[in-house]
Amino acid sequence: MNLPPAAIGAAVADIETPALVIDLDAFDRNIAKMAEFARAAGVRVRPHAKTHKCAAIARRQIAAGAVGQCVQKVGEAEVLAWGGVPDILISNEVMGGTKLARAAALARVGRIAICADNEAQIAAIEAAADQAGLRLSVLVEIDVGGGRCGVQPGPEAVALAQRIARSRHLVFGGLQAYQGRAQHLRTPEERHAAIAHASEGSRRTVEQLRQQGLDCPIVGGAGTGTFALESASGVYTEIQAGSYCFMDADYARNLDGAGAPVGTFRHALFVLASVMSMPRPGIAVVDAGLKALATDSGFPEIWGRPQLRYVGASDEHGKLECQAGDAPELGEKLRLVPGHCDPTVDRFDWYVGVRNGVVECLWPVAARGALN
Amino acid sequence: MNLPPAAIGAAVADIETPALVIDLDAFDRNIAKMAEFARAAGVRVRPHAKTHKCAAIARRQIAAGAVGQCVQKVGEAEVLAWGGVPDILISNEVMGGTKLARAAALARVGRIAICADNEAQIAAIEAAADQAGLRLSVLVEIDVGGGRCGVQPGPEAVALAQRIARSRHLVFGGLQAYQGRAQHLRTPEERHAAIAHASEGSRRTVEQLRQQGLDCPIVGGAGTGTFALESASGVYTEIQAGSYCFMDADYARNLDGAGAPVGTFRHALFVLASVMSMPRPGIAVVDAGLKALATDSGFPEIWGRPQLRYVGASDEHGKLECQAGDAPELGEKLRLVPGHCDPTVDRFDWYVGVRNGVVECLWPVAARGALN
Repeated sequence: MNLPPAAIGAAVADIETPALVIDLDAFDRNIAKMAEFARAAGVRVRPHAKTHKCAAIARRQIAAGAVGQCVQKVGEAEVLAWGGVPDILISNEVMGGTKLARAAALARVGRIAICADNEAQIAAIEAAADQAGLRLSVLVEIDVGGGRCGVQPGPEAVALAQRIARSRHLVFGGLQAYQGRAQHLRTPEERHAAIAHASEGSRRTVEQLRQQGLDCPIVGGAGTGTFALESASGVYTEIQAGSYCFMDADYARNLDGAGAPVGTFRHALFVLASVMSMPRPGIAVVDAGLKALATDSGFPEIWGRPQLRYVGASDEHGKLECQAGDAPELGEKLRLVPGHCDPTVDRFDWYVGVRNGVVECLWPVAARGALN
Repeated sequence: MNLPPAAIGAAVADIETPALVIDLDAFDRNIAKMAEFARAAGVRVRPHAKTHKCAAIARRQIAAGAVGQCVQKVGEAEVLAWGGVPDILISNEVMGGTKLARAAALARVGRIAICADNEAQIAAIEAAADQAGLRLSVLVEIDVGGGRCGVQPGPEAVALAQRIARSRHLVFGGLQAYQGRAQHLRTPEERHAAIAHASEGSRRTVEQLRQQGLDCPIVGGAGTGTFALESASGVYTEIQAGSYCFMDADYARNLDGAGAPVGTFRHALFVLASVMSMPRPGIAVVDAGLKALATDSGFPEIWGRPQLRYVGASDEHGKLECQAGDAPELGEKLRLVPGHCDPTVDRFDWYVGVRNGVVECLWPVAARGALN
């Protein structure tokens, strides 16, 4: 782990760059807005820790009313469980090695649930639970249009749920029904149609399960782009948004509609970068490239400087085009809004929390690189 | 830092996935091939540690004849210097905070050189050297066609070199003349033309410096795609290739010519991934997505399985399309060849070195995330 790029109490001007900076006012506001939304909508919030990878942030979300956290990897669950998070859903299939034994070990210190979309996975979870001498909660993942993991809604899902419910080492935990593809559909109409389809598949599966005497304690899904729609469906019980606490340039490109208020949230996460070279007029080079910023959803935007454009990333360099009259100075620090927050966070060891221009906190990205 | 994904002596089948695996036979061969090339060509090799970020690998390269290492960041230099690397070139501009003081501190334990392309940077390096009570070596970076950092070859570079040479706290170290854009030009003819241009600018600048009584101890540049061309130019004294020890899918797409033998090297770096879901015929999902693989130079290829195609990455998932008859099995481990090795390495805490199907060594990616 690298040293933190700043000291508590330091001025923003003294933060070493590149650094991962949280605007704490915007961050606190985002968490409060989501909590407010969930109370009004009558749904539970289980934020996704794959975004932040940090027990300190998880516990702030829980203090605001979240029921627990989602993770994608057992290593993330370990960081959160030992960091004081009592209720964790691994919203993903878990295969191979010692992963299931590690997940089962965590079930001694908190509530742990795991997803499955295959009979063989369920048998493996069952064996791990038996070995650990406890019962594990298993959700069936259904493919509600994301086209990634998950069985089809309906009879295939019901068969897996029955398999889980029959096991004396397992508990049927419900349905995992996340529509990832819908999150960045740009218009409210497109997102509405995608989540209507997802909700219909979920509802149908819930009903078929009920006919077999199986209740769904959790019907989970939804991200920052669509959570209001799942909440309004009446079938989803938990929303799993992650990015809302930080936001990113990609989510900011979503257009709002009454049912999908992504604009409720403000940019709270920035990569602070310095201009390290001004090689010729019209070009500035910053010290944050591919290793400091995820570019899979586009290059970052420059906060408050719309005439500067980030036009190229190499490993350690970012090239900016400058309009005449708006060129930055050599050494100037700029706030970059990442294209995609989750993998950008995973590039850093530390969050630098800033309020009123001063470093207020340093939080470790403790589950950084927790790939297993 | 996360725990290593395997134990020494374990079988490949028991490595937790995703994991960053080195095929040690191919890796050793790549290092030997480069050393052999450099001896025959009469150039020095200073491999770029921005690729591997690991003192253990740096020291193996030096044992094979490399004169030292390049890095891009002071944090990388710190890891190498304290890891026993005696000669380090920071092949990049260094701006802001305590970075120059940290670099100067390293000059007490080894040779450290830094690049500059601006008078203000030189003044800052001079102040840091003065403060530390030692002399620092500074190279002038010239833009030989890469279009990123660097002053233009010729008088502008000479003026900066004279500024360095006049300082009693600095030593003029030579020219940094890396043509990054040329590395992935696909045909030998294109690369030849780009490096002919780079060499011409370097040669002209070296001559103008000589007329002013200034020698260039280092004229450095070249990457894995072009090193034979810079070596043959007669003007470059050091080649800075990094990727050659690992290779990646992007470099493998370069076409060979007599002057640019990128095909000398073999794929030695893989992300080992497991099939975690087989949701429907023709689709498999592996446990390595954007957080385990850099996708800026394309998706990974599947080693030895040309009928499997990696077609989509999300944060923790990779989607594969399978031809009928060549579908993998649930839980099967696959070797992915990263599109771009440098930022892929930076996703992991550990290298798992494998020979004859057994884990032989675990090396820390010690400068992982050394962004400052």
